[in-house]
Amino acid sequence: MIVAMQETATEEQIQDVVEHLVRMGFSVHRTTGERQSILAAVGARIDFDTRNLEVLAGVEHVHRISAPYKLSGRAFRPEGSILNLGRGVRIGGDEVVVMAGPCSVESREQLFTVTELIAKAGARGLRGGAFKPRSSPYSFQGMGEEGLKLLREAGDKFNLLVISEVMEISQIPLMLPYIDIFQVGARNMQNFNLLRELGKVRKPVLLKRGIAATLEELLLSAEYIMSGGNYDVILCERGIRTFETYTRNTMDISAIPVIKKLSHLPMAADPSHGTGIRDKVPPMARASVAAGADALLIEVHHNPDKAFSDGAQSLYPEQFAKLMDELRIIAPAVGRKIA
Amino acid sequence: MIVAMQETATEEQIQDVVEHLVRMGFSVHRTTGERQSILAAVGARIDFDTRNLEVLAGVEHVHRISAPYKLSGRAFRPEGSILNLGRGVRIGGDEVVVMAGPCSVESREQLFTVTELIAKAGARGLRGGAFKPRSSPYSFQGMGEEGLKLLREAGDKFNLLVISEVMEISQIPLMLPYIDIFQVGARNMQNFNLLRELGKVRKPVLLKRGIAATLEELLLSAEYIMSGGNYDVILCERGIRTFETYTRNTMDISAIPVIKKLSHLPMAADPSHGTGIRDKVPPMARASVAAGADALLIEVHHNPDKAFSDGAQSLYPEQFAKLMDELRIIAPAVGRKIA
Amino acid sequence: MIVAMQETATEEQIQDVVEHLVRMGFSVHRTTGERQSILAAVGARIDFDTRNLEVLAGVEHVHRISAPYKLSGRAFRPEGSILNLGRGVRIGGDEVVVMAGPCSVESREQLFTVTELIAKAGARGLRGGAFKPRSSPYSFQGMGEEGLKLLREAGDKFNLLVISEVMEISQIPLMLPYIDIFQVGARNMQNFNLLRELGKVRKPVLLKRGIAATLEELLLSAEYIMSGGNYDVILCERGIRTFETYTRNTMDISAIPVIKKLSHLPMAADPSHGTGIRDKVPPMARASVAAGADALLIEVHHNPDKAFSDGAQSLYPEQFAKLMDELRIIAPAVGRKIA
Amino acid sequence: MIVAMQETATEEQIQDVVEHLVRMGFSVHRTTGERQSILAAVGARIDFDTRNLEVLAGVEHVHRISAPYKLSGRAFRPEGSILNLGRGVRIGGDEVVVMAGPCSVESREQLFTVTELIAKAGARGLRGGAFKPRSSPYSFQGMGEEGLKLLREAGDKFNLLVISEVMEISQIPLMLPYIDIFQVGARNMQNFNLLRELGKVRKPVLLKRGIAATLEELLLSAEYIMSGGNYDVILCERGIRTFETYTRNTMDISAIPVIKKLSHLPMAADPSHGTGIRDKVPPMARASVAAGADALLIEVHHNPDKAFSDGAQSLYPEQFAKLMDELRIIAPAVGRKIA
Repeated sequence: MIVAMQETATEEQIQDVVEHLVRMGFSVHRTTGERQSILAAVGARIDFDTRNLEVLAGVEHVHRISAPYKLSGRAFRPEGSILNLGRGVRIGGDEVVVMAGPCSVESREQLFTVTELIAKAGARGLRGGAFKPRSSPYSFQGMGEEGLKLLREAGDKFNLLVISEVMEISQIPLMLPYIDIFQVGARNMQNFNLLRELGKVRKPVLLKRGIAATLEELLLSAEYIMSGGNYDVILCERGIRTFETYTRNTMDISAIPVIKKLSHLPMAADPSHGTGIRDKVPPMARASVAAGADALLIEVHHNPDKAFSDGAQSLYPEQFAKLMDELRIIAPAVGRKIA
Repeated sequence: MIVAMQETATEEQIQDVVEHLVRMGFSVHRTTGERQSILAAVGARIDFDTRNLEVLAGVEHVHRISAPYKLSGRAFRPEGSILNLGRGVRIGGDEVVVMAGPCSVESREQLFTVTELIAKAGARGLRGGAFKPRSSPYSFQGMGEEGLKLLREAGDKFNLLVISEVMEISQIPLMLPYIDIFQVGARNMQNFNLLRELGKVRKPVLLKRGIAATLEELLLSAEYIMSGGNYDVILCERGIRTFETYTRNTMDISAIPVIKKLSHLPMAADPSHGTGIRDKVPPMARASVAAGADALLIEVHHNPDKAFSDGAQSLYPEQFAKLMDELRIIAPAVGRKIA
Repeated sequence: MIVAMQETATEEQIQDVVEHLVRMGFSVHRTTGERQSILAAVGARIDFDTRNLEVLAGVEHVHRISAPYKLSGRAFRPEGSILNLGRGVRIGGDEVVVMAGPCSVESREQLFTVTELIAKAGARGLRGGAFKPRSSPYSFQGMGEEGLKLLREAGDKFNLLVISEVMEISQIPLMLPYIDIFQVGARNMQNFNLLRELGKVRKPVLLKRGIAATLEELLLSAEYIMSGGNYDVILCERGIRTFETYTRNTMDISAIPVIKKLSHLPMAADPSHGTGIRDKVPPMARASVAAGADALLIEVHHNPDKAFSDGAQSLYPEQFAKLMDELRIIAPAVGRKIA
Repeated sequence: MIVAMQETATEEQIQDVVEHLVRMGFSVHRTTGERQSILAAVGARIDFDTRNLEVLAGVEHVHRISAPYKLSGRAFRPEGSILNLGRGVRIGGDEVVVMAGPCSVESREQLFTVTELIAKAGARGLRGGAFKPRSSPYSFQGMGEEGLKLLREAGDKFNLLVISEVMEISQIPLMLPYIDIFQVGARNMQNFNLLRELGKVRKPVLLKRGIAATLEELLLSAEYIMSGGNYDVILCERGIRTFETYTRNTMDISAIPVIKKLSHLPMAADPSHGTGIRDKVPPMARASVAAGADALLIEVHHNPDKAFSDGAQSLYPEQFAKLMDELRIIAPAVGRKIA
């Protein structure tokens, strides 16, 4: 931690800050410049609130040096993490993993129709919601455990990994027998109780970035899961909130190369939620792979006009198949192939 | 709902959209202009996803006319809501209610010391956290039910209303006997399951705006509670995330007059979280009252340097007393007095 | 324009708004719904300030239907614009045009060294600043006309188009003999006087999006140039300001497919300014092409550590050559080739 | 400047960075911690681009310690600046200065009518635009020099200071004889050529914050004027761009106390542009004074429905008079009175 003192700070104020730091367990190195003194404090606890120093008299500002995360940082595994997801699918290496499927599981017929089509086009994972966040009490609430069973069955039949969103701690044991990957949605990125519980399970977790979350906060949330012992975390960009209103969110493609540098964890992209509208999904899916994404999550529905939710951002199966062909052209440009 | 067709839309495409709307239960009025056709659809369900029309061929864009909320809208009670909070305190009328206290309940001694000081300065409510969102697994986790008991005891002794944050459905019954007002934090503003349960209790709920939430989304979340039958909702501005990094958040003071126009619900302000740093709290508290806030939430600690959490944004008791004096000068400018 | 009246609006208020609209030259169609009346006004002037209606009694809100731009809108040329830039280079068709070069022209030796390298790697345009916006009075101010002469000479020698930034009206005649494309920087996107003058010249203009500009505002600025008679406008995404601070700006890749839908104008991308840091430039350049960009602007320097400005975001020549190879792989995925 | 090295940085890389810094004229102090080395570099040029270090091998990140501004910083005049504006009006002391008037000067009759009303209500300054930024080529362009003459005449008749916006260098000599304060609009906050020229004049400059400008950038722009020798700079908050769309901009009231701490310069607020809509202007004007603003700029028109520009955000004269009465109640809460 670096504490820059004000130019007008008195010697007494500086000493007071030094003592404060020492009492907190830091060792302090002082640099006295022409205009101001600078204190470098080493050895801090990772969760120290820098504002406690900022309010001391004579302090100009305080700057944290070490990243506040450790397990999720690149230095922890400089070579990068390659996670074995099962069914021969590995993420974080030279293959780009595509997971697709409907927003919600609506019925056996719907699910199996879509699943067959995406499997044929080359997807390796099946995504689908069984529990739906109800923004309106009158909207479709998801099929619950019945939906999970269908997902498992469809995944098994077409040899696909199953990924589905967990929204409450109580859903974890319920989902465990049916799914291969837990998905944490953007709104739950800082639901620390849920993250802590997911740190105890032994299945991979795909953690989506909140719409107002910095990349540092995303890595801190990953840290939370990992500190519980579950190192199989996949991060995912899905759009942030900005002043631009044409797209529902602004998908931050640069988050992909930034995370790949800051962290060893695999980085996925969700262009369906990232844009919110069908015809923007293929360009942003292509851009994600070109920028180095390790995986894609894409909503596909065989009849989007009749989808119970998010139909407007679901691809038609033929659009998805065309996109897969395009991705097969692009992946080699970054030394990859489509899994 | 208004559907603007593209200039190049064919008659067939326009008819297709009209049929789509009629099938959904809207009645449609068509206006044919020089350049384009416009369809006005009346009678919509409140939760309709406009993107389902936006993806139809020939549609330029779709615009929702009615606000997607109803119970929380000003038209529902044009004269404004005045809520009776108990202990003779009413919010939404000509009195500004100040609720203060420490970020966390830390001990009986701490709580009673602070409570006596804020009561003496004129606060009418006691705020304090019993359950703390743990951003780090190693941080203080709150005193839990023991903290709630202390809050109740201190509130009773000094004749103050007790407000505390609820973070999970399971905490509702636990908190019910001890508190007067449930607080929902910014991170839970869209935790719809929690909101639905709070719609069933018969105690007021103070709902904080999320850091990336629009005011429309805030009113939609209030709607969620109200649709369950609990009309005693207080809204609260506590800062949004912007590009400016000097302050932790950017406190959106204009949200106060905007909400007072759009909604009949009382509107509070939390300058402690809104700024995150002590010396900015009094100016923003004064600004909130000057802009028409019905209530303030302010963190006060008798020894902020030793606070277990958020010490840097807690006022010293003497600062709080001085602020109360300043607010007593300002309130009459908006036809108010401090409760 | 659509005017939604409040539910509580009186008949008198509605009539008043109707008369207001008629006086302004609109024809008005009224739809009376169960809850509220809606007025559709057709025939508006393109520059009408909707707030003048919003402040009338009884009005809930006002929504503009027609896009406020016309010449820059897709409907004006549904098939898209292909601009002939000279030297056999066409933009907006099936070729992706790469323009590269140093941030500033520093010397003949520097410019010719870089130019030879980028030409060899396949660039078709040479970019370089002759006038530099001086954020500090002590920084390098650019070589001025001497720099323009060198750009022209280097462009001619290596058969490259020359593009350079114009910052003031007075620079237009000075630049005219030397450059092939005028570039308008992000800070000048709404310098309407400058745009108006550029509407009178007969050379293409590349217009960069401001860091806080919506895409609609970008198209309005393009409209400004086009309304002067100069239809050869190229738009350019170069990053917007968001809450994320890791990258200097957040490059909005989704702006590329959005603009391609809303407008017929070619759309370029500048990943150097869009990210501000060298190792993020290639991924974002690849992403831009994969998302459908018609052109790229890339800063390259043969010795970035010694560059007078923006060295940190300039590619090494070998990085640029490698990137060009990657782009040649990606372009066919979108039915394109590198020009 | 602080350079934090990566944990994995080699001794050679660290030495390389040290040499780099020394070559640039810094003296370097090295702190070797358990996990990483930290280099504190003292003596930097104020305009150093930290990214030039960030791209060196082994560097984790670079943090600027000293504020990049000096003359505009609080340390330059710890007691604060009080500027004498003429006609007995001083800004930055214990008086709050209100400047009001129409958006544009439209005619002698309009200007004199409004001026008389605002003078009677207690304004000390007359604001009005003579040159209007033309967002549409068909809109009213301002009265030019004729408007300046009328402003001067009206100011003299009613004993008010005259403030008007300068948009181009060429307007400076034209305006000099007529106005008392130059206003620089938000779009020109980083028009460095204009700022440099204003550094040479001997009249106060009111500098508005750009809609995407950080407070640090605002102070850097002030520095630009001051480094030319003109120390009479007044800063002004007028709203920033955020994701919230209900208000045209989000007025950042917290900028007022932040600037008062970081800088010695007087800080004004413009609630008319900050909100963009009439009924939000008085609450935000009151909030600004309650938060410590030294001055207010308010648009007033005697017939806003007929105003040539910005009528929707102009107060009626009776609203302005009522606001002045409210401000007279609020000012004493911050130890002030209305000038």
